Amino acid sequence: MAANESVTEPQRLTPKGRATRDRIVATAAQLMYDRGVAGTSLGDVQKAAGVGPSQVYYYFGDKEALIRAVIAHRIHALLATLGGLDSMEGLRAWRDFIVDTYRQQNCEGGCPVGSLVGELAERFPECRADLAGGFDQWEAAIRKGLQAMWGRGDLRRKANPDRLATALLAAVEGGIMLAQVRRDPAPLETALDEVLDRIEDLRPRRATARQ
Amino acid sequence: MAANESVTEPQRLTPKGRATRDRIVATAAQLMYDRGVAGTSLGDVQKAAGVGPSQVYYYFGDKEALIRAVIAHRIHALLATLGGLDSMEGLRAWRDFIVDTYRQQNCEGGCPVGSLVGELAERFPECRADLAGGFDQWEAAIRKGLQAMWGRGDLRRKANPDRLATALLAAVEGGIMLAQVRRDPAPLETALDEVLDRIEDLRPRRATARQ
Repeated sequence: MAANESVTEPQRLTPKGRATRDRIVATAAQLMYDRGVAGTSLGDVQKAAGVGPSQVYYYFGDKEALIRAVIAHRIHALLATLGGLDSMEGLRAWRDFIVDTYRQQNCEGGCPVGSLVGELAERFPECRADLAGGFDQWEAAIRKGLQAMWGRGDLRRKANPDRLATALLAAVEGGIMLAQVRRDPAPLETALDEVLDRIEDLRPRRATARQ
Repeated sequence: MAANESVTEPQRLTPKGRATRDRIVATAAQLMYDRGVAGTSLGDVQKAAGVGPSQVYYYFGDKEALIRAVIAHRIHALLATLGGLDSMEGLRAWRDFIVDTYRQQNCEGGCPVGSLVGELAERFPECRADLAGGFDQWEAAIRKGLQAMWGRGDLRRKANPDRLATALLAAVEGGIMLAQVRRDPAPLETALDEVLDRIEDLRPRRATARQ
């Protein structure tokens, strides 16, 4: 996130300035989630955040800088939900958390990070790089958990934590996209469970039999 | 497709009218792929298609109707690439086709159908339903192939073609999204191969041993 912050926040801010900036970013993140990036103007953000007309420009300069701050904000929030991915129980709990989150929002809105790709990746190269960086961190957290399982012998030697982490992240994104268009969490559950079952099948026979 | 066509094409067209309409749709599909939907105005489409100012309105009435015609056009093109998904060889060939297609376009642009979800699903309910219908047809084609394998005994009784089809489609969409943001086909290859390897593992031991 640090690389983004330096772009969108060139000056050191007072605590009050930081709070104002954070409020603008959180407001923009919500508006862009509800209306899309193209459907959200800097004027919309300014009004909804309750700040003066010049303040959005003061903190961000232009819309792309604000979009990049929103991407950083969403990635930060998403990474904060990750943890304990180093056991089958932890992976299944994470799966339940994702599915429950989408069910609670009626499968509306898509992934906070992934839903930006289609709209931004080709028109804003720096946003594309920011999104790629976010996915890299997300995948690294999953991989770290799987590597820990592998290191402890909870996965067979032939299991490849790197590849399984990529497959799990793709299942999250593809599953959420299908859940969003269908307004049904079932494809997300299925996509995740099929990869998780593959991971389960790669446990040593001893560990599998223990269940 | 028929449901969409009836919305965007209320009148019977002459062959010339049909050709003009098709040219407008194909032009709009390309512009929207390159610039996004919000970045493509009806005026842009009119100029690029080389038609008169009133013709886009004559055939489509408004931008949403044109977007829906673009969705139908893209789904039609995508479904035409499917076939022979009823064997491991056919599934691997389809995987190679998808990966080669994205490699040739330098992983730019995303899935012609999936890349529209983030921008359209929440703001245009009818577009969301059209996209869901496209994914349903796509998944049905994959499922049909897997069911044929299952019916012939090329998959074990415990294999579930419905679930595997959902997982494969999610792997395509999630894998393409990751390939797009990273400008690297590797995550798409990995996501597809992990699900295909799972399907391979679900073949009868006899079939696996034969390889």
